[in-house]
Amino acid sequence: MAIDGKHGRMVNGWPDERFLRLVGSEHPIIQAPMANAGGVDLCVGAMQGGALGSLPCGMLSPEQIRQQVGEVRGRAQGPLNLNFLCHSVPESVDDSAWKALLQPYSEEFGAEPGPDMPLRRPFNESMCKAVEELRPEVVSFHFGLPPDQLLSRVKASGSLVIASATTVEEARWLEERGVDAVIAQGYEAGGHQSNFLDSDPAAALGLFALLPQIVDAVAIPSIASGGIGDGRGVAAAFALGASAVQLGTAYLHCPESAISEAHRRALRDGRTVLTNVYTGRLARAVRGRLIDELGPVRREAPSYPLATSALIPIWTAAQKHGEFGFTPMLAGQAGPLGTGLPAADLTRRLASDALAVLRRSA
Amino acid sequence: MAIDGKHGRMVNGWPDERFLRLVGSEHPIIQAPMANAGGVDLCVGAMQGGALGSLPCGMLSPEQIRQQVGEVRGRAQGPLNLNFLCHSVPESVDDSAWKALLQPYSEEFGAEPGPDMPLRRPFNESMCKAVEELRPEVVSFHFGLPPDQLLSRVKASGSLVIASATTVEEARWLEERGVDAVIAQGYEAGGHQSNFLDSDPAAALGLFALLPQIVDAVAIPSIASGGIGDGRGVAAAFALGASAVQLGTAYLHCPESAISEAHRRALRDGRTVLTNVYTGRLARAVRGRLIDELGPVRREAPSYPLATSALIPIWTAAQKHGEFGFTPMLAGQAGPLGTGLPAADLTRRLASDALAVLRRSA
Repeated sequence: MAIDGKHGRMVNGWPDERFLRLVGSEHPIIQAPMANAGGVDLCVGAMQGGALGSLPCGMLSPEQIRQQVGEVRGRAQGPLNLNFLCHSVPESVDDSAWKALLQPYSEEFGAEPGPDMPLRRPFNESMCKAVEELRPEVVSFHFGLPPDQLLSRVKASGSLVIASATTVEEARWLEERGVDAVIAQGYEAGGHQSNFLDSDPAAALGLFALLPQIVDAVAIPSIASGGIGDGRGVAAAFALGASAVQLGTAYLHCPESAISEAHRRALRDGRTVLTNVYTGRLARAVRGRLIDELGPVRREAPSYPLATSALIPIWTAAQKHGEFGFTPMLAGQAGPLGTGLPAADLTRRLASDALAVLRRSA
Repeated sequence: MAIDGKHGRMVNGWPDERFLRLVGSEHPIIQAPMANAGGVDLCVGAMQGGALGSLPCGMLSPEQIRQQVGEVRGRAQGPLNLNFLCHSVPESVDDSAWKALLQPYSEEFGAEPGPDMPLRRPFNESMCKAVEELRPEVVSFHFGLPPDQLLSRVKASGSLVIASATTVEEARWLEERGVDAVIAQGYEAGGHQSNFLDSDPAAALGLFALLPQIVDAVAIPSIASGGIGDGRGVAAAFALGASAVQLGTAYLHCPESAISEAHRRALRDGRTVLTNVYTGRLARAVRGRLIDELGPVRREAPSYPLATSALIPIWTAAQKHGEFGFTPMLAGQAGPLGTGLPAADLTRRLASDALAVLRRSA
């Protein structure tokens, strides 16, 4: 086996080693950043298993980012990814129709306005300063890229930049702006679809069709995400031309993930839908009472991320009645394939199972 | 290489040989049946290249079926699949809202009621007699299975039976009723989604997530379909546990396919959607003026297959004005990966490229 990459890892065995050489992780696997679900423990476990670990930073203050990165660095070796969001926050919205729609639920559960919860914030000056100071090996962006000036500073600080594409056009757009690798995000993926170039959600591409089209369209390495649940999916992604994979839902099953027991059980359901009712933007989630009764997509929901504010008091109150059908339980389509292994073991298992599938064809 | 299967073909090289042993084709590839697009020429070409060729029989009379099978047998060796539909035809429907919706288009193009075109018919007594007489190696069904009595007769005649599933539940249902192999039809697939057990179209599964879940749920061989565009996709399907693949759109690109030049060009578009406006049932098609203006899914469309009747005079008239946006141009999501090779060459290329991808990992 050859030794390569800036961390001197063994990189042989995979049919495409470009991601490993670029990033220096032991396995070509990214533990996906998942706000409210994957914090320091999950990231550390994935890194200990040889994955590129990720911290979702879109809902953290710069101080919280510094604190979490410090904790990860103290507990795990290897490359780390900090993930940020690149949406535009609407200046002000009329959410009266949305609140009126939710009012019956508010009354049913006796919801009371609570303290403001942090909303998802786009990458900004203070976050950029934290990146320049912390110098993570990788910075990933969702919903496009930050303004050129901020992007240049991230790159100048030495971090590799990766970002998600849901179409060939988005992948080309990202490559033209200098990202080091592109994540091909399939329709199957849990959480928010990253589409940012006015793409049609009804035309969302499954990973089987999306990944090879992006691989053909760009020269940079492609990372497959969406619907990959086990080693077979990892191997399939490499057959389609991926240099790495990113898995979220598989890691949600881990004991280190910070999700409710209701959410953990729901991952096995498999009947997820793309819905805008939790945030105002399409995200894949398990069905629950809110989606069943309102339908998955509502025009009344104000723009991302503002739809969440009116919903938080309701889901908080509903949970006290044992009802989790108002709480966002994000999940991808491969949820039923999950194992429940700890994150380090899951990472090693994904890699060894994938290599076994790939070698079986010899 | 080992020699096996009832036709004495070489079956080595593929990580799963169950389909090859069962069906006896040279390659584990099915040319998908496609009404109005894939007739005798396409089937013959695919068979000459070593695929299991298919004839779509849902719009043919028994006499036409006999004639087409005779022609195929005279021009190609190897196993043949006859495909039938298993929908219920609604007794009578009120299509006044649908006709009212289409009226402006009827006026715009000066559409005139023409002769009745044959609609899609479910598998029945006279089709069953034709199968018993013709004894194709394989009979495949879409939208479930025919009544038990007809199914038993097909099996007793010696044909293998395969059918499509869009969920794990549908795959189990088919296995319990004795089918010999199940087609896992992903969200990416062109044409009609086969769902028949009241499954939710909004929860349609991408092939990456669907295929391994079906492979795990049934003991019979699984056939992957939807979004597979080239040898990489074939290899990926085998990595996920498939015993064979079924490709439609890839064969639509062939010179032998009976589609319009407009349809052929549109295959490269890639922005397909699931729509019910052409038949009353969800099918994946390229966007056109009808979908753009009405939206892809309309409640006014009468039940499958009856929505088509009111539309035929309009698309016929529109075509005379060079407008193909009212004609169903069915296509899957991997259309942009097509080659335009003749069907025999395409089949051989798919097999050899897939085996090369699989061997690359050795």
